Amino acid sequence: MTYLRNCWYMAAWADEVGEAGLARTLLDQPIFLFRDADGAPQALLDRCPHRFAPLSMGEVAGGVVTCRYHGLAFDGTGACVHNPHGPVTRALATPSYPVAERHRAIWIWMGDPERADPDQIRDLGFLADAPDTAFNKGYVLGGGNYQLFVDNILDLSHTDYLHPDTLGGGSITRTRAKVEQRDDGIIKIMWDSYDDVPPPLVRSKMPEGVERADSWTHVEWSAPGVMKLVNGAVPAGTPREGAGNSINVHIMTPESERTTHYFFASTRDYALDDAELNEAIRRIRAQIFSTEDEPMIAAQQERIGAADFWDLKPALLRIDEGAVAVRRRLDTLIAAEQAEWQAETA
Amino acid sequence: MTYLRNCWYMAAWADEVGEAGLARTLLDQPIFLFRDADGAPQALLDRCPHRFAPLSMGEVAGGVVTCRYHGLAFDGTGACVHNPHGPVTRALATPSYPVAERHRAIWIWMGDPERADPDQIRDLGFLADAPDTAFNKGYVLGGGNYQLFVDNILDLSHTDYLHPDTLGGGSITRTRAKVEQRDDGIIKIMWDSYDDVPPPLVRSKMPEGVERADSWTHVEWSAPGVMKLVNGAVPAGTPREGAGNSINVHIMTPESERTTHYFFASTRDYALDDAELNEAIRRIRAQIFSTEDEPMIAAQQERIGAADFWDLKPALLRIDEGAVAVRRRLDTLIAAEQAEWQAETA
Amino acid sequence: MTYLRNCWYMAAWADEVGEAGLARTLLDQPIFLFRDADGAPQALLDRCPHRFAPLSMGEVAGGVVTCRYHGLAFDGTGACVHNPHGPVTRALATPSYPVAERHRAIWIWMGDPERADPDQIRDLGFLADAPDTAFNKGYVLGGGNYQLFVDNILDLSHTDYLHPDTLGGGSITRTRAKVEQRDDGIIKIMWDSYDDVPPPLVRSKMPEGVERADSWTHVEWSAPGVMKLVNGAVPAGTPREGAGNSINVHIMTPESERTTHYFFASTRDYALDDAELNEAIRRIRAQIFSTEDEPMIAAQQERIGAADFWDLKPALLRIDEGAVAVRRRLDTLIAAEQAEWQAETA
Repeated sequence: MTYLRNCWYMAAWADEVGEAGLARTLLDQPIFLFRDADGAPQALLDRCPHRFAPLSMGEVAGGVVTCRYHGLAFDGTGACVHNPHGPVTRALATPSYPVAERHRAIWIWMGDPERADPDQIRDLGFLADAPDTAFNKGYVLGGGNYQLFVDNILDLSHTDYLHPDTLGGGSITRTRAKVEQRDDGIIKIMWDSYDDVPPPLVRSKMPEGVERADSWTHVEWSAPGVMKLVNGAVPAGTPREGAGNSINVHIMTPESERTTHYFFASTRDYALDDAELNEAIRRIRAQIFSTEDEPMIAAQQERIGAADFWDLKPALLRIDEGAVAVRRRLDTLIAAEQAEWQAETA
Repeated sequence: MTYLRNCWYMAAWADEVGEAGLARTLLDQPIFLFRDADGAPQALLDRCPHRFAPLSMGEVAGGVVTCRYHGLAFDGTGACVHNPHGPVTRALATPSYPVAERHRAIWIWMGDPERADPDQIRDLGFLADAPDTAFNKGYVLGGGNYQLFVDNILDLSHTDYLHPDTLGGGSITRTRAKVEQRDDGIIKIMWDSYDDVPPPLVRSKMPEGVERADSWTHVEWSAPGVMKLVNGAVPAGTPREGAGNSINVHIMTPESERTTHYFFASTRDYALDDAELNEAIRRIRAQIFSTEDEPMIAAQQERIGAADFWDLKPALLRIDEGAVAVRRRLDTLIAAEQAEWQAETA
Repeated sequence: MTYLRNCWYMAAWADEVGEAGLARTLLDQPIFLFRDADGAPQALLDRCPHRFAPLSMGEVAGGVVTCRYHGLAFDGTGACVHNPHGPVTRALATPSYPVAERHRAIWIWMGDPERADPDQIRDLGFLADAPDTAFNKGYVLGGGNYQLFVDNILDLSHTDYLHPDTLGGGSITRTRAKVEQRDDGIIKIMWDSYDDVPPPLVRSKMPEGVERADSWTHVEWSAPGVMKLVNGAVPAGTPREGAGNSINVHIMTPESERTTHYFFASTRDYALDDAELNEAIRRIRAQIFSTEDEPMIAAQQERIGAADFWDLKPALLRIDEGAVAVRRRLDTLIAAEQAEWQAETA
């Protein structure tokens, strides 16, 4: 599969990469994530250049990973720093990848390393700034192509059918989304609903007796699959000012053509010190995404099989406007990148 | 794999398709079987035209299936009857297949729908007519190509080796089968055995002291893989008139190139109200087919692998006459159908 | 995958082939090993020529295997000796393979049968001669190409990293191996270490207080993957004469391109009647090979995937000299054999 290369992919939550490191396949490549002596993340191809043993089966100490098969040791640049069997040479290097830790996550650049600029990582500072009592997160290894997982967030009308007992109430379906394609590469999809029945989870937070709400759900996508989702609601007809917002991220990174690392997190601008609420939010989200979204998307993938998505001629609905805009944007970016590389190598 | 298309395949036992419907892959196609408001069976491609979610993950009510992902609803013709996101258009249709309920079973036509005539369904009225106390059935998902499962019924000499403790006693091996290729498309294979040792299960029903029997086993195959099997036995030299017959069906429908829906049922023309006998027959047949036949055929398939059966040059024996006649008939039917389609599309 | 054909592969330990025979895939071919009426081993393609059922699902009696599906019976030459359904003809034969029992093992020849000479089987008489109290053996079905398993024995420096608590102490790493390519086809790799720290298992057998040892480890490979390994140690500076030797074999036979039958055994020239020691050796070796070597090699294979080993450009170290010599030798033998066959069939 052809992936966008010159961009930052989320590789892991920062706390997933501890002393022992983390082996994870990203864009079909086995990668070993670990930390140097200063705690900075590093990423190497998880394959010793000598006999191709996974470096992740070895040990990390002082920012150096030692292969468990023959004792070659590498630092975070991929350079061999110890060879028990002869001289340390440059030929013993293993590929490394630019990585950066931002916003409680570790990001990896799997394209041209000279272009890797951590300042291009999407600004998700609200995650880093959130107190621990107002930050929760999760991870699901999903059985479908990452674009299907992206579609799922860009077309939230699905909540009305897939999550009717929690997130869906029909108001998204009854609201036509506005789609903005911004110059900074962000595509923004906005559902603003007025005087409608709120979803069960929203209704439970409304004052007693309130049956209708004004609500908003705004998603901002940027390449390759990083989405910020803000939503909130007030009793119908009351001012939005001062209403609490739920502020979420959904980030999709391909593991392979048919599997996706689905990272999600949630913070908010109210009840920041309510640890109990925080834990309840974490639990319900993990449950919904793993038992309702993931199985549906895995089933979609099974039906699609090896076919190209567009070759199957999906029937397009109004609700797909945002998702289709994003797919086209991503296709354009990938095509441009491929064309550039072909021009360089011609 | 190239299947015969313009014919009726058994898709399910009628009682397998209840309120929730039934998802089943037939001839490599995922199919959703359900019932309309009148209880008539319907069959749709189990893939929503919008985003390819399986319709079988949705809900059926009043003969309409609603997709669980975005709420599109379809009737049994495949037409969209409800779109919460915009107009109902013809582009939203999903493929449907002619189906019919006959003889306690549901049959599907996966070829040219204009040719689908339920009167061409093989007459198995004896199944429908049997009282519940003289009808039993079963189903096994078999790990081999459907033609291997068909072969297994057309060459019953295998019972002498694979089922020596129940169905086999050697008399089939010692009897040369007569094979009739009839004009109505049926190929009939007849084993008539005289004054021979009966199989254990037959012997147990003979009068005490009787050690030899006259017996008959007649199989009638029609395309694609529908077989009626009648057998009975009397003490050697006594009249056949009035002897009880066991009347069975074995029906094979491809799930995929290497897996088969094996449907079987049994009725009889004696002891029609003996529910206990009926249950005993059901149990022994299910056990034999699932623990002796299916593993052997799955092992055959594993040895054949991806090779064409004839390319492996099977050694032909006298006992294969019926099975080979059927394979050749089926190959001829498939080749004719392919030629006709190529002529039409040329 | 192209295998060397005209050579003896170890198929099984002799005691693995009992009355019921043994089904085992060798070089991608399903083989049925059993014994004739005199107890001599026989090998047939494990696929009945009639309908391709595995013969191993049948029964062996008096050196004849009877197919469980239709009762055809074959002797060890592959000739049909009983056909319940008609004449016994030569067309009913199934392929057979030369086999021989030597050195407690059964060997199979999967090349030109006319060249099969059991005297070419590697002389491992020390296994046969060992008393039962000084002979132990094991078997692991390994998840990697057989050449990776061969490499593992030819480069024993891995013991210092993969088995630091038992077999490794660093002395192999600190010793440059001598490699001899002998005219008889054997490639011999010798590690002779002086005044060095012995591995934990060796140290435990040294006199109390002895911290340094002189040790030797000699491996002799012959095609396709038969290796004899002799090692021993004495307190540093003391005479080697009279010191005990551990005498081992490691034999690799391909099951498929990515799986290997790994046979290993151990005898010795001391403490020949110590059954308890023998069992302790058996246990520790089986544990190390199955829980440390096999998982590492399976992980290597996963990283290599479908790629050719050399195409991945492995970084060569001093320690690889013996393993590389063996890989080149084997490649040369296979290429010569292929060239000869192409010349014959041109």
